[in-house]
Amino acid sequence: MKAQQPLLIPTTSVNNHHAAPFTLQLAEARTVDSIRKLGPISRTDIANITGYSRSKITAVVNHLTRLGILEEIGSGEASGGRRPRVLNFKAEFGYVVGVDMGATSVDIAIANINGQIVDRVGAAIDVREGPTLILGLIRKMVLERLEALNIHVDKIYAFGIGVPAPVEFSTGLLIAPPIMPGWEAYPIRDFFQETFGKAIAIVDNDVNVMALGELRAGAGVNVENFIYVKIGTGIGSGIVCRGEIYRGADGCAGDIGHICADQNGPVCHCGNVGCLEAIAAGPPIAERAMQAAREGRSVILAKLMDIQGSKLTAVDVGRAAAEGDRVANEIIQDSGRIIGEVLASLVNFFNPSLILIGGGVNHIGHQFLASIRRGILHRSLPLSTRHLRVDTSPMGTSAGIIGAIALAMEHVFVVEQDSAAE
Amino acid sequence: MKAQQPLLIPTTSVNNHHAAPFTLQLAEARTVDSIRKLGPISRTDIANITGYSRSKITAVVNHLTRLGILEEIGSGEASGGRRPRVLNFKAEFGYVVGVDMGATSVDIAIANINGQIVDRVGAAIDVREGPTLILGLIRKMVLERLEALNIHVDKIYAFGIGVPAPVEFSTGLLIAPPIMPGWEAYPIRDFFQETFGKAIAIVDNDVNVMALGELRAGAGVNVENFIYVKIGTGIGSGIVCRGEIYRGADGCAGDIGHICADQNGPVCHCGNVGCLEAIAAGPPIAERAMQAAREGRSVILAKLMDIQGSKLTAVDVGRAAAEGDRVANEIIQDSGRIIGEVLASLVNFFNPSLILIGGGVNHIGHQFLASIRRGILHRSLPLSTRHLRVDTSPMGTSAGIIGAIALAMEHVFVVEQDSAAE
Repeated sequence: MKAQQPLLIPTTSVNNHHAAPFTLQLAEARTVDSIRKLGPISRTDIANITGYSRSKITAVVNHLTRLGILEEIGSGEASGGRRPRVLNFKAEFGYVVGVDMGATSVDIAIANINGQIVDRVGAAIDVREGPTLILGLIRKMVLERLEALNIHVDKIYAFGIGVPAPVEFSTGLLIAPPIMPGWEAYPIRDFFQETFGKAIAIVDNDVNVMALGELRAGAGVNVENFIYVKIGTGIGSGIVCRGEIYRGADGCAGDIGHICADQNGPVCHCGNVGCLEAIAAGPPIAERAMQAAREGRSVILAKLMDIQGSKLTAVDVGRAAAEGDRVANEIIQDSGRIIGEVLASLVNFFNPSLILIGGGVNHIGHQFLASIRRGILHRSLPLSTRHLRVDTSPMGTSAGIIGAIALAMEHVFVVEQDSAAE
Repeated sequence: MKAQQPLLIPTTSVNNHHAAPFTLQLAEARTVDSIRKLGPISRTDIANITGYSRSKITAVVNHLTRLGILEEIGSGEASGGRRPRVLNFKAEFGYVVGVDMGATSVDIAIANINGQIVDRVGAAIDVREGPTLILGLIRKMVLERLEALNIHVDKIYAFGIGVPAPVEFSTGLLIAPPIMPGWEAYPIRDFFQETFGKAIAIVDNDVNVMALGELRAGAGVNVENFIYVKIGTGIGSGIVCRGEIYRGADGCAGDIGHICADQNGPVCHCGNVGCLEAIAAGPPIAERAMQAAREGRSVILAKLMDIQGSKLTAVDVGRAAAEGDRVANEIIQDSGRIIGEVLASLVNFFNPSLILIGGGVNHIGHQFLASIRRGILHRSLPLSTRHLRVDTSPMGTSAGIIGAIALAMEHVFVVEQDSAAE
């Protein structure tokens, strides 16, 4: 038995038919893990965290240093006596690439093994052009930046890729992706491994990746259980459970856009009636506003619609509300309340301590967040909201790219399961 | 820093102002853990599972054997060569008590440290009589059994107690318990520790305890993510996430009875409208049947009601349905469908691979389970039901007592966090 398991992702493991960049013994893996989570730290700290003896950790650290993975970087904090030498990853050891793909844009960042971004580029795309074209463009952009940075392709150890689609996490394949039809079951991982032979490519749903970004470097740091909700063209969520992304049995946990919010609501593109995103996402918000404008119920919305060529977006509704438009305010409050009431079901079930609201529609005004909060409080049990915080994501649009880098970093090293007797 | 953390319960830790029975070093704790999960096992197995060297594990096992915690029990399976000696807990080392408390009955079991039940008793109670009386009765019953078994009270190391109420798990206190009003914030843990000085008492919500029973010894063994749903007087659920009970930020995760199932539904005792348990639990099922009987819409239900003194229960509705009563069948199908549609929201969100249906109402006929399944499939995303199994609990009413023993066993040993450098 020589099963491999990625670090930090104890349950939903990636199916490594691809060779993983670095395979470690369990004690080495626990050491690497402790440094990634808390580094730079001392040998004594590592021993305390991992449960191994000081001498065992010294041997492990020596080995990892010889491999060029770790380095000593001066002194840590003193607690009386001389200050201990602390360890971190050796920055030049290698790099990872984060890719945050949206329907109309892609954001790419290259980071060293400590997670520090060394370069970042972006481009406008249309995912409907299909995987060959879009992935080819991303590959070209990465190769150009690596050349400029004088980094060899073999120094890239992992890609973390967020896509706006359902993903079977273990294989990295997209499954019935509504806005990326040509991408179904396309082997994204193989595509990158062809050029970047030393790298593993990990693909995940974009909202999971954003939740991971918040967990590692945003409002979710040190929060055990939270839900990240993205409200845009659709509505989705990423779940953090016990300090890790939770993906569920098929990798599609968090897909809340088609929860029934109103049994008498409109028909959704999925065929069901009253789905949350058919009532409260960006498009239905804009649609209601356009209808009000057409029916002469709002002068401000009608004027905005006129200026913009007979069209309105959810952001326009926010603008009208900011100008004091009653109808726009009503639409925003209704949508917020409906989202809040669906989230209340999830609060009763999951009892998180934090709900983070992100996505483009999130910016249509304070009324929106206030209405979401009211909706949650209206239908949640008092006990489950005692410590609940509901807030907008402070990382904003950076959550995706930071999460993609974190996703890559967590897959550079894998642990050999049967590696104890040494 | 000498923080203590119970084994197997890595996140929602119990607040141990009470001395825990046995505090172990990390390597000892990991050894004990591996034996509890997989025992009896060999030293080599323990080394492989824990990641420690063979020589370290030999030292740990020797120490735990000297303390009387472990013993060698003959030989394990051979894999070529001589058969390795395997280790298990020493049965006489100590005992735990499981208490499964319902509104009208209590079930008590005494088990040895390997989880084998050595005695079991039950009694009819009325929890409304308050904690002093009821807990006094339970204490008396346990003391009597211990005397009969010739077991000293100081050999009891833990109580696992399931109660039909919301519990703050870290303190073991009941919070706003609807059917146990006099119990709010009563110090159940202190009560048992007064008599059983060596024991820790762990209190949890009854549905969590049932889910734990299924996880350790029922349909949930080796299932990473599942939901146990109890349908009785109320409706509640226990969540298993990554092979552990998930309790949420305030310990009230799984409280699904007050999720909105119908915006135009009846007013619930909680004050909100259309709560799941106000529409589809035992009492509303019985209420709908009684109304049909009174209105002359069902001869069979009217006859049953007549026999039973103007009253019907959900079980009677099941009996009428089995006799082919159309109205009874409709009521059962409606209730099942509504439960299924609420569960569909949770399937979309949590993407479990198993939903187990338990509780008294569960037994009102095959139509009920079939309707729950249809409701789930109707409103879940196809991807999230690819591997979903929905079934009745095969353990039935034993899940509670088996879970209570498992809960106790998981708290006999706690690990000292700062116990590495040895």
